[in-house]
Amino acid sequence: MTNWVAVIPAGGAGTRLWPLSRKDKPKFLLDMTGTGSSLLQGTIDRLPTDQIMVVTGPNHAALVAEQVPDNIRVITEPSPRESMPAIGLAAALIERQYGPQTVLGSFAADHLIAHTEVFTQRVEQAVALAAEGYLVTIGIAPTRADTGFGYIKQGSAIGHGGYLADSFLEKPDAQTAAHYLADGQYLWNAGMFICQSGRLLDWLADVEPELAQGLRDIAASWGDTDPNPRWNKLKPGVIDRILAEPLAARGAVAVIPADMGWSDIGGYAALREHLDSPQTARDTDPVPVVTEGSDGAVIYTHNRPIVVNGIPHAVVVDTGDVIYVSTTEASNLSTLVPSLTERGLEGLN
Amino acid sequence: MTNWVAVIPAGGAGTRLWPLSRKDKPKFLLDMTGTGSSLLQGTIDRLPTDQIMVVTGPNHAALVAEQVPDNIRVITEPSPRESMPAIGLAAALIERQYGPQTVLGSFAADHLIAHTEVFTQRVEQAVALAAEGYLVTIGIAPTRADTGFGYIKQGSAIGHGGYLADSFLEKPDAQTAAHYLADGQYLWNAGMFICQSGRLLDWLADVEPELAQGLRDIAASWGDTDPNPRWNKLKPGVIDRILAEPLAARGAVAVIPADMGWSDIGGYAALREHLDSPQTARDTDPVPVVTEGSDGAVIYTHNRPIVVNGIPHAVVVDTGDVIYVSTTEASNLSTLVPSLTERGLEGLN
Repeated sequence: MTNWVAVIPAGGAGTRLWPLSRKDKPKFLLDMTGTGSSLLQGTIDRLPTDQIMVVTGPNHAALVAEQVPDNIRVITEPSPRESMPAIGLAAALIERQYGPQTVLGSFAADHLIAHTEVFTQRVEQAVALAAEGYLVTIGIAPTRADTGFGYIKQGSAIGHGGYLADSFLEKPDAQTAAHYLADGQYLWNAGMFICQSGRLLDWLADVEPELAQGLRDIAASWGDTDPNPRWNKLKPGVIDRILAEPLAARGAVAVIPADMGWSDIGGYAALREHLDSPQTARDTDPVPVVTEGSDGAVIYTHNRPIVVNGIPHAVVVDTGDVIYVSTTEASNLSTLVPSLTERGLEGLN
Repeated sequence: MTNWVAVIPAGGAGTRLWPLSRKDKPKFLLDMTGTGSSLLQGTIDRLPTDQIMVVTGPNHAALVAEQVPDNIRVITEPSPRESMPAIGLAAALIERQYGPQTVLGSFAADHLIAHTEVFTQRVEQAVALAAEGYLVTIGIAPTRADTGFGYIKQGSAIGHGGYLADSFLEKPDAQTAAHYLADGQYLWNAGMFICQSGRLLDWLADVEPELAQGLRDIAASWGDTDPNPRWNKLKPGVIDRILAEPLAARGAVAVIPADMGWSDIGGYAALREHLDSPQTARDTDPVPVVTEGSDGAVIYTHNRPIVVNGIPHAVVVDTGDVIYVSTTEASNLSTLVPSLTERGLEGLN
């Protein structure tokens, strides 16, 4: 297999799994499913390479460093500027250290993948296609008409299990999502990108020359010069928009479909699919849970037993400092969580 | 006002307010509504007499004694045998101490009454009617077609705000309850009975001579002889069935209708009517509660903040040793609570 480096952007918090996931300890740092590993650790364990670079923010760098093995390089980006600068910085560092032809693959820190062997195979195919000069993404075969993901339209086959990516599509409405699912040629965009490091930066130089130059300059003096002044002038943005969409129009993007039990754990309903039983916080002894008439409940305990009675799809999360009671149908955490402070609940976001 | 003695039978646990109410600490010993007093203490405070006798079981006698003022007599019945023996024992003790014409009034330890001044007036009327020789009950003017109560059919007026009680009726089905409500002549049986002590025992001697004799014998040697052997042979039963029903047929029962904001707090839905805001356990500092899309929620905290999101009529009770999550619609606690031990939750009934 071609020499390649895995990059794990580990930033961003989100509110959809509050109060498990917090601003200061987002879900990638947490053991969400009782495996004994955080999602970040699970991501590292699953990657078929020993060369791994985690790109994280200053707020999480210490906890990331605690969690990862010593041979993993932790890059602290000066401030969060979304995925393009984060992956671009990694590409620029890899380009300098291993040469421009070295492939990098970027994988989110907080996803779950049930079938590691399928993932490994798809990654190997993606690295092979990247070595041929494509920007490669692994697209998830959809299992439902989900309106929460962007989609990738799959085009003609190009070998190594891959296809041309005809286009990247925004999150659809329900009718369009149903059409995508029925059609069979549309895949979920899971944000996985695999590409030669030099090629990625050269392409970036085409569309955002200042950004590409800034990243290469920062990488050139990484460890010697304070990157902050330069970094803070970089244009923020996501790699999907800045790079993948325009390159797809030029026939330079490949997509490899994968059916591998993938989840971004985008909320309690998704989390439930990965839980065999109620979870107990790791710093307390296990306590009993009783459910009655509450099918599909998601329950996390923290040293107090919990009885849930007559609430199907209940969500009951005791984190020790707060108890959250809801259902998996609730979709308002993005507005509720920021309002908590003014409603008397300080320090729990 | 005629000299009279109030009797408060304080026994029985029930499961409808679990986990607030427990076998070893039932609701009459608890401050359910944040007044600073237990229901028993509230009952004592509300009674318009200084002569009060609490009849309780051996399990609760110590806690009862802690809660009541020194001038209140606490009678420990050897074992629970329902309301007839409990009230009958009080009657026999009062008959001996104050004479057979002394009126006793029996009032449950765990009810709420919002309008004390109305209650006081009705009790005074009841004592006056009892002195005329009736077995008097205070019937609650129904505010809804409730199927959870027995009913009393009100007959012709007999003065002092009272009416003959034509009959005592079992808990009705929904249709019958609606008829009772519309008719206006049916009152809820709240288990309040007022009667001369000697007359009560004489009537009891008519229908259950062994029980009446047993009670009078036990009272005669109360404090001198171990009452257990005799007590444990007494026939258990409730005063409504044993005494009130047959006496109503003989025209000896009076009922005084009362509209006084009465509640037996028969479950969380009833409890909600008496709560202004979420409650915090008295042994912890108050903590914040946030509710969103959860109208009519009943919430008790115990040192952890609680957030309830999108569950109308939610019931969330944190007692420190268990967290209970349900809705006020749940009506299965009587089967759920006894099953907890075999489901891994020991010692919480």
